[in-house]
Amino acid sequence: IRQGVPEVILGEGKTAAQIVAIAKELARTGQNVLVTRVDDAKAAVVVSEIEGMKHSPMARTCTLERSPIVPLSDTKVALVSAGTSDLPVAEECAETMRMLGVTFDRIFDVGVAGLHRLLHKRPLLEEAGVIIVIAGMEGALSSVVGGLVDVPVIAVPTSVGYGAAFHGLAAMLGMLTSCASGITVVNIDNGFGAAFAAVRILRARARAARSTP
Amino acid sequence: IRQGVPEVILGEGKTAAQIVAIAKELARTGQNVLVTRVDDAKAAVVVSEIEGMKHSPMARTCTLERSPIVPLSDTKVALVSAGTSDLPVAEECAETMRMLGVTFDRIFDVGVAGLHRLLHKRPLLEEAGVIIVIAGMEGALSSVVGGLVDVPVIAVPTSVGYGAAFHGLAAMLGMLTSCASGITVVNIDNGFGAAFAAVRILRARARAARSTP
Amino acid sequence: IRQGVPEVILGEGKTAAQIVAIAKELARTGQNVLVTRVDDAKAAVVVSEIEGMKHSPMARTCTLERSPIVPLSDTKVALVSAGTSDLPVAEECAETMRMLGVTFDRIFDVGVAGLHRLLHKRPLLEEAGVIIVIAGMEGALSSVVGGLVDVPVIAVPTSVGYGAAFHGLAAMLGMLTSCASGITVVNIDNGFGAAFAAVRILRARARAARSTP
Amino acid sequence: IRQGVPEVILGEGKTAAQIVAIAKELARTGQNVLVTRVDDAKAAVVVSEIEGMKHSPMARTCTLERSPIVPLSDTKVALVSAGTSDLPVAEECAETMRMLGVTFDRIFDVGVAGLHRLLHKRPLLEEAGVIIVIAGMEGALSSVVGGLVDVPVIAVPTSVGYGAAFHGLAAMLGMLTSCASGITVVNIDNGFGAAFAAVRILRARARAARSTP
Amino acid sequence: IRQGVPEVILGEGKTAAQIVAIAKELARTGQNVLVTRVDDAKAAVVVSEIEGMKHSPMARTCTLERSPIVPLSDTKVALVSAGTSDLPVAEECAETMRMLGVTFDRIFDVGVAGLHRLLHKRPLLEEAGVIIVIAGMEGALSSVVGGLVDVPVIAVPTSVGYGAAFHGLAAMLGMLTSCASGITVVNIDNGFGAAFAAVRILRARARAARSTP
Amino acid sequence: IRQGVPEVILGEGKTAAQIVAIAKELARTGQNVLVTRVDDAKAAVVVSEIEGMKHSPMARTCTLERSPIVPLSDTKVALVSAGTSDLPVAEECAETMRMLGVTFDRIFDVGVAGLHRLLHKRPLLEEAGVIIVIAGMEGALSSVVGGLVDVPVIAVPTSVGYGAAFHGLAAMLGMLTSCASGITVVNIDNGFGAAFAAVRILRARARAARSTP
Amino acid sequence: IRQGVPEVILGEGKTAAQIVAIAKELARTGQNVLVTRVDDAKAAVVVSEIEGMKHSPMARTCTLERSPIVPLSDTKVALVSAGTSDLPVAEECAETMRMLGVTFDRIFDVGVAGLHRLLHKRPLLEEAGVIIVIAGMEGALSSVVGGLVDVPVIAVPTSVGYGAAFHGLAAMLGMLTSCASGITVVNIDNGFGAAFAAVRILRARARAARSTP
Amino acid sequence: IRQGVPEVILGEGKTAAQIVAIAKELARTGQNVLVTRVDDAKAAVVVSEIEGMKHSPMARTCTLERSPIVPLSDTKVALVSAGTSDLPVAEECAETMRMLGVTFDRIFDVGVAGLHRLLHKRPLLEEAGVIIVIAGMEGALSSVVGGLVDVPVIAVPTSVGYGAAFHGLAAMLGMLTSCASGITVVNIDNGFGAAFAAVRILRARARAARSTP
Ligand SMILES: Nc1ncnc2c1ncn2[C@@H]1O[C@H](COP(=O)(O)O)[C@@H](O)[C@H]1O
Ligand SMILES: Nc1ncnc2c1ncn2[C@@H]1O[C@H](COP(=O)(O)O)[C@@H](O)[C@H]1O
Ligand SMILES: Nc1ncnc2c1ncn2[C@@H]1O[C@H](COP(=O)(O)O)[C@@H](O)[C@H]1O
Ligand SMILES: Nc1ncnc2c1ncn2[C@@H]1O[C@H](COP(=O)(O)O)[C@@H](O)[C@H]1O
Ligand SMILES: [Mg+2]
Ligand SMILES: [Mg+2]
Ligand SMILES: [Mg+2]
Ligand SMILES: [Mg+2]
Ligand SMILES: [Mg+2]
Ligand SMILES: [Mg+2]
Ligand SMILES: [Mg+2]
Ligand SMILES: [Mg+2]
Repeated sequence: IRQGVPEVILGEGKTAAQIVAIAKELARTGQNVLVTRVDDAKAAVVVSEIEGMKHSPMARTCTLERSPIVPLSDTKVALVSAGTSDLPVAEECAETMRMLGVTFDRIFDVGVAGLHRLLHKRPLLEEAGVIIVIAGMEGALSSVVGGLVDVPVIAVPTSVGYGAAFHGLAAMLGMLTSCASGITVVNIDNGFGAAFAAVRILRARARAARSTP
Repeated sequence: IRQGVPEVILGEGKTAAQIVAIAKELARTGQNVLVTRVDDAKAAVVVSEIEGMKHSPMARTCTLERSPIVPLSDTKVALVSAGTSDLPVAEECAETMRMLGVTFDRIFDVGVAGLHRLLHKRPLLEEAGVIIVIAGMEGALSSVVGGLVDVPVIAVPTSVGYGAAFHGLAAMLGMLTSCASGITVVNIDNGFGAAFAAVRILRARARAARSTP
Repeated sequence: IRQGVPEVILGEGKTAAQIVAIAKELARTGQNVLVTRVDDAKAAVVVSEIEGMKHSPMARTCTLERSPIVPLSDTKVALVSAGTSDLPVAEECAETMRMLGVTFDRIFDVGVAGLHRLLHKRPLLEEAGVIIVIAGMEGALSSVVGGLVDVPVIAVPTSVGYGAAFHGLAAMLGMLTSCASGITVVNIDNGFGAAFAAVRILRARARAARSTP
Repeated sequence: IRQGVPEVILGEGKTAAQIVAIAKELARTGQNVLVTRVDDAKAAVVVSEIEGMKHSPMARTCTLERSPIVPLSDTKVALVSAGTSDLPVAEECAETMRMLGVTFDRIFDVGVAGLHRLLHKRPLLEEAGVIIVIAGMEGALSSVVGGLVDVPVIAVPTSVGYGAAFHGLAAMLGMLTSCASGITVVNIDNGFGAAFAAVRILRARARAARSTP
Repeated sequence: IRQGVPEVILGEGKTAAQIVAIAKELARTGQNVLVTRVDDAKAAVVVSEIEGMKHSPMARTCTLERSPIVPLSDTKVALVSAGTSDLPVAEECAETMRMLGVTFDRIFDVGVAGLHRLLHKRPLLEEAGVIIVIAGMEGALSSVVGGLVDVPVIAVPTSVGYGAAFHGLAAMLGMLTSCASGITVVNIDNGFGAAFAAVRILRARARAARSTP
Repeated sequence: IRQGVPEVILGEGKTAAQIVAIAKELARTGQNVLVTRVDDAKAAVVVSEIEGMKHSPMARTCTLERSPIVPLSDTKVALVSAGTSDLPVAEECAETMRMLGVTFDRIFDVGVAGLHRLLHKRPLLEEAGVIIVIAGMEGALSSVVGGLVDVPVIAVPTSVGYGAAFHGLAAMLGMLTSCASGITVVNIDNGFGAAFAAVRILRARARAARSTP
Repeated sequence: IRQGVPEVILGEGKTAAQIVAIAKELARTGQNVLVTRVDDAKAAVVVSEIEGMKHSPMARTCTLERSPIVPLSDTKVALVSAGTSDLPVAEECAETMRMLGVTFDRIFDVGVAGLHRLLHKRPLLEEAGVIIVIAGMEGALSSVVGGLVDVPVIAVPTSVGYGAAFHGLAAMLGMLTSCASGITVVNIDNGFGAAFAAVRILRARARAARSTP
Repeated sequence: IRQGVPEVILGEGKTAAQIVAIAKELARTGQNVLVTRVDDAKAAVVVSEIEGMKHSPMARTCTLERSPIVPLSDTKVALVSAGTSDLPVAEECAETMRMLGVTFDRIFDVGVAGLHRLLHKRPLLEEAGVIIVIAGMEGALSSVVGGLVDVPVIAVPTSVGYGAAFHGLAAMLGMLTSCASGITVVNIDNGFGAAFAAVRILRARARAARSTP
């Protein structure tokens, strides 16, 4: 999985010093680096200690581009999200895709309570090679998207909501039991994981295309 | 709550003999009787012991009509359900409304995975005075319906589904955290409760209408 | 749902800057604005950035009244709550009703452990067109109210309590399994949702009244 | 704990043969025996194998009275229950009290949805030395009783209910978080345990009375 | 419940200002006041605003003694706790008992992992009229105490522990399913509730004694 | 989603009569039919009522092939499962893939407790275009497979196991929190859903291939 | 792990035919076979199909001894259990130890509610090289045993109990949060696993002993 | 358990003053002291108040060595952990073993997503007398280790991870239901408990060795 693509460091549960140490080690070998789930305080240290490291506060990521990002495929991913509060997860997903060379369109603020906004985007959805759906609360958006189109759908439950949302449990259970067939699900708030799942699909497809005369 | 409307017996957790005893007592006073959540075996006993008692196997109800059912209101309820497996709950709801004098339309098999079927019914939804939405699995239907129309929506999660549906928990949490504003929820599989909630709305409205010159 | 009534912004999960941006956009079109679940720090920013915006710390809301609030109906809502700790949720509900043109009475501090206080308010309950019951801990208040009167009851479990209250779970399960028939429930701490559910009922009733000669 | 009072065998999780063996051993020494949570099939074996053993199907108990039951105290227990479906637990409790020499009154079918029935029984409640409250669904009855009177209240959540009742969890959490002060709780469906808790209270009181000149 | 005994204010979920207002109102009528679950910051305000109010930081209580505390009974309560971390709950219980006129012995630091310490206290346990057992983690202490003596046992699960303790859930479930018969349980960390349950027992006993010639 | 591919009926929650009615309707139009989660009793009725319907007891499916199955792609799916008890889910997945024209290899009985068996199959895994991993208990197999290869991995937790497996919850949580990046998950026991997710990937790939000159 | 010791087949989730096939295959190579979690119906088939296979109904095991069982160590295991209802798990553990050549003493019916019975067995506990503690309900027995002695303690929560026992959850959480240091835990009802954990300890010790001159 | 080995104080839930008091008391008798789960603020107080006390911030421990640590055994423990975020738990375990005289090797950063790193360490694993496996997220590492070697395996789930990891629940359930036989489990994040379980094994072994001529 490792050549030409960034090494990814999960920032959560590590001290700033640990992140810096690992990132420096990787940077020395010329590799690109993506740090996820890094809060503002840690990010400040990481950015100040490593030349060229950049921080995206919304995405809670730090990125270091030592070598040009290699485009993975010309297939587009549609990155769909329900509301403003889902932005941190959506942007973590976006940064991960960008660093891994994936092309994508943002289709944001299309929660199911205002169905017309989603329906207007249907053509974009149908063109996509993979769809990532990010939603909190009851997570119904993935069922509706999965019913509209025939494309691989990767659903990301978010911890947006309160009370019976139980920190993403409601959305997670809802996406796993979706009445739309063949929806797949990643962990709560795991924008990174959804991006990586899309990469697995696009990479296998690219490999297959190369091996076909 | 009790004049002119049926007395309701919750059949679950009672023996057939107990149900018969309570129902006979009520019948003697000329009252209509509705027994809910009564399985086939108990229903057979109840029907054979009480003259005029009828069994709806799909709804799991027994009903006895000793006096004519008094129409409650001319406002129509829309009874919306997602799939075939939700029928027992939907029919329990229907039988309860029928016995309580509520007029309603059935809008069945309109799960969100096939959105067009629901959208075709939009006029019916907009005409309704109250909408009851019955769905299992992820229960997304109530969010979509609640986003489409402005009418009171009573959502009934059902225990339809398996695995992460956890016997209706996924649908229940999903409906409670719906991104559509002002959806209300009753207990899992509680078709009776949804009907009764509609009755509360219609009865208050009828009373208000009567007291207006 | 949108003409003449305020646009609602869910403050939680948004930055102060995001709230300001959305609210300014709405204000420019002359619309009233209600921001819910906004903490003191964000509220300070929102109030200082937007002319005429007001903050209710108890209700955790900010409100902007650009145009006069249109009365929705002459039916009164009874807003019932169990204890002092439920006030933030009750006041969120009150502010939402106020902004949406609903008339209501407060019936506060009538928890079931002191039944007489509730029973003294029975006439007020019977007059109401809709009752909203707000209670934490075991949430028994909605069962008692629902047994006393025949009116639509919307129950709001709150996260008040500790230990086995599990942040509102005990009250939520209790309200969903209420032995009083036809109680409906919204999400934990969702005072806004209860107000909106009442609005759905009152709006449908007003519409029906208008269409009746 | 053991002289003059029956030895108790928990029937659940034991084979009929194991119950018979233990009961015979006890009977040989002249002791009274109470078997709880014994289903009809096992009870049939136990009754047929042991001379004088009696079966109460509603209470799911078998009892053998080899020596006269010694009255424990002249203080009365009030055994309060919410509905017909709580009868098996209430009768298990009753049989246990009877075998342990406790005098008690049954106050049944006084669920909080029909408050007047409970209020009519207030004098009986106030006279009692201990109150046992048995209720399923949301278990609100113990809060109301605990608010009405000053007596020790032992609450028994039952598994009556469906859906969000989660086999007694809703009632159990509700009773543990009761807003009435000083309510104590035993396990779901544990009528036996409630009776025994009452016995502990009455026995300590009797002992204290004896040691006072 | 209210004459001669303190009025109790649950501090949690109330602002310092609200607590002060309620306490002042009560103090004006000459009543004693007990505030529970009040953190250091609120307590500082309450103490500085109300003449004579005292703060117990360990117990997280504030108390105001306007009139002499009336002794409730000469029966002693044994207040048993497992470890040092359970002290805040134990002391909340102690302060509540003190304010309500209950005499009690502290038997602390007798967790079941060092059984001999508990066994040395057996005489004290046997003399008690009521035993309150306070323990976190697995809460086994109440089973052992309940097996040793015949006295009423009120078990208080605490939130002490981490991981699978799940904030007191492990202890709570353990105490509810205790293999010792007739143990009763109050909410997690509810030292107040246990004291009040003891008061119910002692008060009923005192009343009975008075009414006996 | 619907041309040339079978219509799928979820057998669970439907009566045999309902399944027969739906299947007959579909069969009349010449469509292939797949019924999933159908127990032996219902399957017997379905097979006897519909000419050409076949039952796979292990897969709990009934299938009707009215028109030849159209091959979907020449990309192979690797169907990996942990143990013998996972067979029903694995075979449901296999039957679904067969009916949808997917080519696949079975790699069974390669649970992580015997790692060498899995490692021997590594070449087969690397050749696959999609991998479906089916495992119960702790579900660790998907993490190991996801770490070995770069291909899309769809994980199916099964309800195999007892105790802390909690009917598939342990495996489901384990797969969602996998330390291998980009694993996606479907519902517990949802062999059908995994097959359909693979179909979404293969179909999108086939469509892309067709549209490339 | 496999020479000279029996191959173990987990009977649950396999058909009788599958068990027979696997067992026959193993038997042919002269190996001993242990089948666990096999119900009476399957066991009857297995016993009738395989010469020499024996069924222990209490332990729910079938065993085939083709070659003599090799004693593993002269260190004794103490197999401690709380009550009669724990016997099936205790006997599964016993049969597994027997088949694996472990010597053990049974110390049964020593639940903590009757502490003296356990204390009488203290010498046996102190002599043991490993202690296995099997208990349901609140599972307090392992804390007490772990506090009494210094030996490795393997705790097995059982599903014995009802209500808040939640099928072994209470005991499992209790054992995991034991206040006695260094207790280890296996899955609910996993008598087999506890035996195997003991075998790991004894085997490592035997190996170490052999490699010491 | 107590001679020659350190007394252990659980720092969590105690004030710095309480820790200091207990530690001073122990130090006065010349005993070694280990304080676990002590945060930086408390540690600063403890270190400044007690001569010779040392703080390990990573391990969250304070240690006082008044007398030389007595080596327990020449058997080595392998301390295996999955990732950098598990370090605090692993180091708590390491410090506990060091204080108790256990010799051990660290085998860190060998999570199952990169299997080769673990396989390279196989010889070290096979040499160990006890293996402690520390892992968060899905906790699969213990299944793989338990399948590779025959040695006692003590698994420690950690709270590392987010979303469906539910603070260590996913890892805990996964380890308890491991498909590798005879794995034992301690509480989430309980590095201390795992070390102590290893000590129980090594101590019993040392005692047995001593008593063998
Ligand atoms: N299906 C049902 N679900 C929930 N509550 C019900 C149901 N059917 C009846 N009830 C309620 O149960 C009451 C009757 O309870 P009971 O007196 O036990 O028969 C009715 O008045 C209703 O309030
Ligand atoms: N306190 C609240 N609780 C639940 N939903 C709310 C609340 N306040 C606002 N909403 C809903 O959130 C929507 C706004 O979401 P957003 O577009 O993210 O600001 C509103 O239209 C309401 O439907
Ligand atoms: N620590 C506590 N835990 C649970 N309930 C309490 C506690 N302290 C006081 N209460 C109860 O809360 C009531 C006061 O509630 P409030 O009127 O909101 O102050 C008292 O009468 C007690 O019944
Ligand atoms: N009662 C049991 N509980 C848990 N695991 C078991 C049990 N019996 C056998 N096993 C494990 O299951 C494996 C056999 O699984 P299988 O190959 O599916 O028969 C054995 O090697 C054991 O590791
Ligand atoms: Mg929005
Ligand atoms: Mg359908
Ligand atoms: Mg109050
Ligand atoms: Mg009734
Ligand atoms: Mg201590
Ligand atoms: Mg196998
Ligand atoms: Mg026994
Ligand atoms: Mg790493």
